[in-house]
Amino acid sequence: MVLHLLESFNDKSKFRFVLASKSPRRLEILRGIGLSFEVTPSPFDESILMKDSQSTADPAGLVARLAKGKSSAVVEGLVGKGVEVGVKTVVIGCDTIVVVDGHVMGKPKDEEEAAAFIRKLSGRSHEVMTSICMHILNHDMKIESVKSIVEKTKVFFRPMSEQTILAYVKTGEPMDKAGGYGIQGLAGCFISHIEGDYYNVVGFPLSLFCSALESIDTK
Amino acid sequence: MVLHLLESFNDKSKFRFVLASKSPRRLEILRGIGLSFEVTPSPFDESILMKDSQSTADPAGLVARLAKGKSSAVVEGLVGKGVEVGVKTVVIGCDTIVVVDGHVMGKPKDEEEAAAFIRKLSGRSHEVMTSICMHILNHDMKIESVKSIVEKTKVFFRPMSEQTILAYVKTGEPMDKAGGYGIQGLAGCFISHIEGDYYNVVGFPLSLFCSALESIDTK
Repeated sequence: MVLHLLESFNDKSKFRFVLASKSPRRLEILRGIGLSFEVTPSPFDESILMKDSQSTADPAGLVARLAKGKSSAVVEGLVGKGVEVGVKTVVIGCDTIVVVDGHVMGKPKDEEEAAAFIRKLSGRSHEVMTSICMHILNHDMKIESVKSIVEKTKVFFRPMSEQTILAYVKTGEPMDKAGGYGIQGLAGCFISHIEGDYYNVVGFPLSLFCSALESIDTK
Repeated sequence: MVLHLLESFNDKSKFRFVLASKSPRRLEILRGIGLSFEVTPSPFDESILMKDSQSTADPAGLVARLAKGKSSAVVEGLVGKGVEVGVKTVVIGCDTIVVVDGHVMGKPKDEEEAAAFIRKLSGRSHEVMTSICMHILNHDMKIESVKSIVEKTKVFFRPMSEQTILAYVKTGEPMDKAGGYGIQGLAGCFISHIEGDYYNVVGFPLSLFCSALESIDTK
């Protein structure tokens, strides 16, 4: 596990971690394990990839491209901004999508779409996919390696009445979240169970991420 | 769902909720859905039931008895302390156990036992069972009904090295938790996936609890 490696990862003469996301949920999860990192929200415009992909035969490929796009855009901004010799920079890009019958849901654009999302998810299961892309750079900001992971979790919603759907949308919780719900919030009331990693549904597959961290050379 | 019923449940002329637990995690989950409640830690001595039950053929029955014991002890303390006519009091008792091969794990008594627990859970699956017992009382504190639920979630740990187990125990996280780990904390790093309700593993099966709340007459 990553616990015994944290000392190396938090050693500023060896590593510098940059999270290419401003999602408060991702920040909280990553802070929770005690990793030190900077936050640089990615300028990547995901609508380019999401526009034509409301239905896709390869949702895992899509979410991986989105995560890589976010990470790459931050890496581009670092070019020419070298750090001390011996310090590796790890840029972490993430994206989460909700997939139901091959249809991809990002964040709802308004309350109406949020209600339509929840109506579609009610009383059945769907998949949540989160991809993390890590660019590992040397002190000159040259890319040494790129690691990409995709985690999938099945989520089951209890059947919901129209009254509950509208009450939920009215809380405002759905608006900034893929699929229009937050398992870490009120949606916990109507999610009967999941199969997979909980943190993946929140937006950051913690266990798989820790496995990937372990494969980084800390010598 | 419970969302549209919250107005009634939070109406002090109709309901009064009492949580018979001081677990900060349970408080946080219950507060998260917007339910107003008082906290009265239960004087129930669970060691009476837990002592002889390190192995049991009926762990679900055991956890249900523990939850009911906690709730009942708080109900006893309310006898004679009637409230306004028309107000129902709902006392909520909870207990969580970890079950592996019919062996029941409560909270570890020291670091050594915590390490032994984690060693046993490493690289395999186990079950987490939480029971909630609700005593519903009339204004005279006479019991109108008792609802008891048990939720089960399967939890999978990645294989852990001895080094990681000891590093985890050293963080202090295991000490006040059934099975010696907290999925909402650092243990999220080594839990690869779950099958069931996440909140049940934290100690409060939110979705099943909300279903049970819906069956309470709010008229």
